[in-house]
Parts: sequence; C-alpha cells; structure tokens
Amino acid sequence: MEKILQEIKLVVLDIDGVLTDNKFTMDELGNLRKTFNYSDLMAIEQIREYFEVVLVSSADRVNPKFAEYAELPYYHIKFGGRRDKKDFMFKYLQKRNLSWRNVLFVGDSPVDKKLLIASALGFCPADAAPEIKQLKGIYQLSRNGGQGVIEELYEIIRPEIMRRLKHG
Amino acid sequence: MEKILQEIKLVVLDIDGVLTDNKFTMDELGNLRKTFNYSDLMAIEQIREYFEVVLVSSADRVNPKFAEYAELPYYHIKFGGRRDKKDFMFKYLQKRNLSWRNVLFVGDSPVDKKLLIASALGFCPADAAPEIKQLKGIYQLSRNGGQGVIEELYEIIRPEIMRRLKHG
Amino acid sequence: MEKILQEIKLVVLDIDGVLTDNKFTMDELGNLRKTFNYSDLMAIEQIREYFEVVLVSSADRVNPKFAEYAELPYYHIKFGGRRDKKDFMFKYLQKRNLSWRNVLFVGDSPVDKKLLIASALGFCPADAAPEIKQLKGIYQLSRNGGQGVIEELYEIIRPEIMRRLKHG
Amino acid sequence: MEKILQEIKLVVLDIDGVLTDNKFTMDELGNLRKTFNYSDLMAIEQIREYFEVVLVSSADRVNPKFAEYAELPYYHIKFGGRRDKKDFMFKYLQKRNLSWRNVLFVGDSPVDKKLLIASALGFCPADAAPEIKQLKGIYQLSRNGGQGVIEELYEIIRPEIMRRLKHG
Repeated sequence: MEKILQEIKLVVLDIDGVLTDNKFTMDELGNLRKTFNYSDLMAIEQIREYFEVVLVSSADRVNPKFAEYAELPYYHIKFGGRRDKKDFMFKYLQKRNLSWRNVLFVGDSPVDKKLLIASALGFCPADAAPEIKQLKGIYQLSRNGGQGVIEELYEIIRPEIMRRLKHG
Repeated sequence: MEKILQEIKLVVLDIDGVLTDNKFTMDELGNLRKTFNYSDLMAIEQIREYFEVVLVSSADRVNPKFAEYAELPYYHIKFGGRRDKKDFMFKYLQKRNLSWRNVLFVGDSPVDKKLLIASALGFCPADAAPEIKQLKGIYQLSRNGGQGVIEELYEIIRPEIMRRLKHG
Repeated sequence: MEKILQEIKLVVLDIDGVLTDNKFTMDELGNLRKTFNYSDLMAIEQIREYFEVVLVSSADRVNPKFAEYAELPYYHIKFGGRRDKKDFMFKYLQKRNLSWRNVLFVGDSPVDKKLLIASALGFCPADAAPEIKQLKGIYQLSRNGGQGVIEELYEIIRPEIMRRLKHG
Repeated sequence: MEKILQEIKLVVLDIDGVLTDNKFTMDELGNLRKTFNYSDLMAIEQIREYFEVVLVSSADRVNPKFAEYAELPYYHIKFGGRRDKKDFMFKYLQKRNLSWRNVLFVGDSPVDKKLLIASALGFCPADAAPEIKQLKGIYQLSRNGGQGVIEELYEIIRPEIMRRLKHG
C-alpha cells in the first residue's frame, strides 16, 4: 500500500454508513437527524493538510449541513439517476487533470461499488453491505460506520503523512 | 423454504422492533422520534422490484412519515381494537384475490403473533419478544431490530429474486 | 419469591436508568430528550391488569410527558429535598391502607437505595450504580436500563399473573 | 495515587468524548444535539462536595447549555487558536494560587494531550484517541466516553473523599 499511497491526492468519503452508522432518526414531521463522530472530524483535520478531502453522497438529507460544519466540499449524486458516483468522479478527475491512481475512497453500500473498484485504494467499514465486503482488492477496516472509521484510516495513512511532512 | 418462496407475492413488514430497535425518543413536549436504517431502505428497494411490499403497524407515531419517505403503503392497525393485524391482512388478501400462501411477514411482538402464524413465511429479529421467539415454524434472523433486519432478509430471499430475474 | 409476589399490589418503577439507559440528549437550546422502549410499554400493559403500576422519579424533565403517553400516574420526588422516594412511598401506602409487603420496586441509583431496601421486592437493572448492585436482598436483572428491563420483569412475575388470572 | 490525590483541589473535565461518546447528532437545519449520562451528573454531585469541578472544551456547541444544567463553570478554549487547554489552565492556576500538583484532568483527544501530561493526575476513557492511550503516566479507565466515566472516577477517588469526610 505504501507505494500506492504516495500517488494519492484525493481522499473521497461517502457519508451515510461511513461517517454515520447508516441510521437516521425521523420525527413526527418527517424531519431527519444523523449522528456523527468528533473523532472523525479531528482525523479529517489532520488528513486535509496533505490530501484534498471531498464528500460524496447519494442521500441528500442533513449531509449538506454536515459538510458545511466540517468545511468540506460536498457532492450529491442522485441514486437511481443515470450518473453514479464513479461517473461523477471520472469527470471530476478529468477537470482536475487527475487519474484513478490519485484516488482513495471510503464507501459502504452497493451504490459505492463501482467507485470502490475504480479507486487506487478502496476502504470499507467492518459493517459494510455484504456485497461490498465480498469485493476483492478492498481494504476492510476494523471499525463499524460512525465508530471512528476515519480515525482508523488516519492511523493507516499516517506513515505517508509523516513522509510528506518530512519532504515538505 | 425455496418452494414456499416461489408463491410469495406480498412482503409485509412491521415497523417498530423490525425497522427500528423498538425504541422511541421523546422530547419535553411529548413529541416522538424513531431511528431507521438506510441499509433496510436499500434492501427494500431491491425487494420491491419482485414483491409487493407493505408496512403494517399498531403504533402510529412517526411511522406514517417513514412510510412516506420510503414510498411504501402503510396500514395502521389499532392495538387493542377489535381487529388485529391478522384480521386486517385477511381482508386485504380477499380484496386482492390472494391467500396466506402468498404472504411473507416480519414481526417482533405479541401483537404480531397471529399474523406470523398465518403467513406462509414468518420471520422475527433476534431480539423479538420471548413469546414470539418461542413460536414454532418462525424463522429467527441473526440481527436485532433496527440493525438491518431487511438487509438480512434480502440475502435470504436473493436466490428467489435471481430466479424471477431469470424468468423475466 | 413466589409467596412474596402473592402479596404485591403495587409495582413502582423509577424512570431514568430503568425505562431509559440513564442518558439524556440535549440540544443547543438546552431542551432534553430521552429514549424509551416499546417492549417495556407492552409489558406494562400486561402487568397493570393485575397490579397497580406507578412511576416515581427525581429527574423531572421529559418524564411527565412519558407518563402521559404511557397513561401511568407519575410522582416527582425532588432530589436533595427533605423527602426522598421512601418517605414519599411511606405516606402513599398509609393513604391507601397498604404496607411495604405490597410493594415491588425497580430502581437503579443511590437515590433509590432506601426504597429498594424497604420494598418487599427490589429489582435493579444489570448496569445499576455500583452502590445499588452491592445491596443484599435486591434482585439484579440481566438487562441494562432501557433494554427492556420491564419485559424481563414481566417474564419473572408471569407465574403470579397466571395464578391471579386463574383465580379471577 | 493515594498521596497525589490528597493534594488535588481541582477536578477538570473535558466534555466531548468524556461526558459524551464523542458523537453529535445534526438535524436538517444544522443544529446539534449531544447525549449525556445521569450517572455522571450524580457522581459529579458527590465529587464537588470535596473538590472544585470545572468543565473545559474546545467544541462549543451544546456544551454551555450542559454546563448550565449541571451548574458547573465552563471554559471554552478555541481549538486551533494560539492558546490551548494547558495554557488556559496554567493562567487559571496562577490566578487561584494553585499549581499542577492540585489538578486532576480527564480528557480523551489530541487537544487534551498537553494538559493530561501537565496535570498531577490524568485520566482517559477506554476509547480515547490512540495518541492519548499511548501516553505514559495516564490512567486509562475501563469505560468508554459517555458510559459513566465520571461514575468510574468517583469509585476510584472515593477513599480520598472518605478521608476528607473524616477529617472534616
């Protein structure tokens, strides 16, 4: 993984099931709430000093407000539409003159499948959908979604952060 | 189960204790919230392509709004009233020219007992009420209510979905 | 326990830490929410047919609204005031011409200590305060607060309910 | 620890990750909620009779309202600003004519590191950040943040409370 990490420029994070436990709370008016983890926010603070971090999600509720709070760019990719997360990211990379070699992605659900396969590094939480956990070439984290998945990712990529810190 | 599954046309889901952990959160004004799982919503999306999916519940708060969000028909059967879930479903089947052979039901509590027994296939979460878990002929899932019970159900009925997909 | 149960007329329940996990959620305005379990509500429905059920609590927020929803009498006993739960219940028994032999109490915290000791039957959840779990003559349930403590209690007292049912 | 405890006058508590599980719930308007534990509040009630208790936090949302509810002094130390929790506490001690020998601190995250090292007694929850758990000379509690960390701390310092009670 060491060599591949050196090429990574973009850390792409799914939200529901990665930064949350994939649950939502609904009130009697139909309004939603979701639960996030400060340990992930703190890890993101460290990661973004050496990588570009972006959020992509197919579930729109609450997530834009979370992105605002975390001060991260957020892209909503409609589920069931013609474009999926991989298509979106392909165009995003073209615009930025980047390639799949530069992408690390953390996702958990069937709609993340193509992007997980396309990315140079794909990670999923321990409680990702069965279909995702069966994928080959994907790194399965030891934590469940919402339980500090990004804190765990940070520990994994810290040697690369240390290397970049050294080389200025 | 394979043969019985081929006859199933209707997937009936209880809400509290199946799609939720059977808990509700109350604020100081007495308003309620309940917590649902996107993995269940995603599994329902897949199941409804080959089965009719309906929600039945004896606890009315929040649930109609959830049904709206999930875009599923919702029937409220008053607990303690003269009609119970089984009576309701019996009439529902008559109107639709269906029979118990066509019904798969997931329930967790004493008020689900009769309908669980009547249905061709009855499932309950791992933390269903003791009275329900002791029933014979009911399939006990490995997950607790709210922890992706329908995602697990989807894995179980996937071979039948594959069969229907093949036969158009 | 069998003989003692025959004398019980009053089932007294603490709220926080018994019907909840002893937690409260606070918003930015300082308003509170607490989380309850439908399995407890359903067990209470069964118990109240043969016992009088009352709620006593020293934490006032949310609890009166829960009592209203559960349709149970609720008594707020101020913590730190001169009267404690035991004093309150003593007067309550006098008015009703009852005695401690008639009381079953479920509590979890230091403020419940005296009432737990005075009651004919005292129960505490598995995660009660250390000080409470060390008490002798108290029955420790296997479930934590908020995880269906009353559903478990119902299973324990069911033989007595069956006896009363038989004897009309 | 016995001798060191005799010198402690100030019990300083971080909030997120100590009194909570380090999570926050966000609604669709971007408003936050956090979940606290009555068992911690009850332990704080006991501790504050013999120690001064103060709250310090770098995350400002909800926390001032919690401090108000708990009737505890609250100091917000901006994360990323020039002053950190240790600098703040150093000045606080000077004003009060106290020294580090008088400070017990419970913290869980990288921003608590310096203050944990400086304090005579430093404690962290079982699920503190990896960087914190690796620190030498810090006591790791057996409970996770939000699961009654202060209730556990109270059990640990109870012998000292008993000693002070005896000596008036």
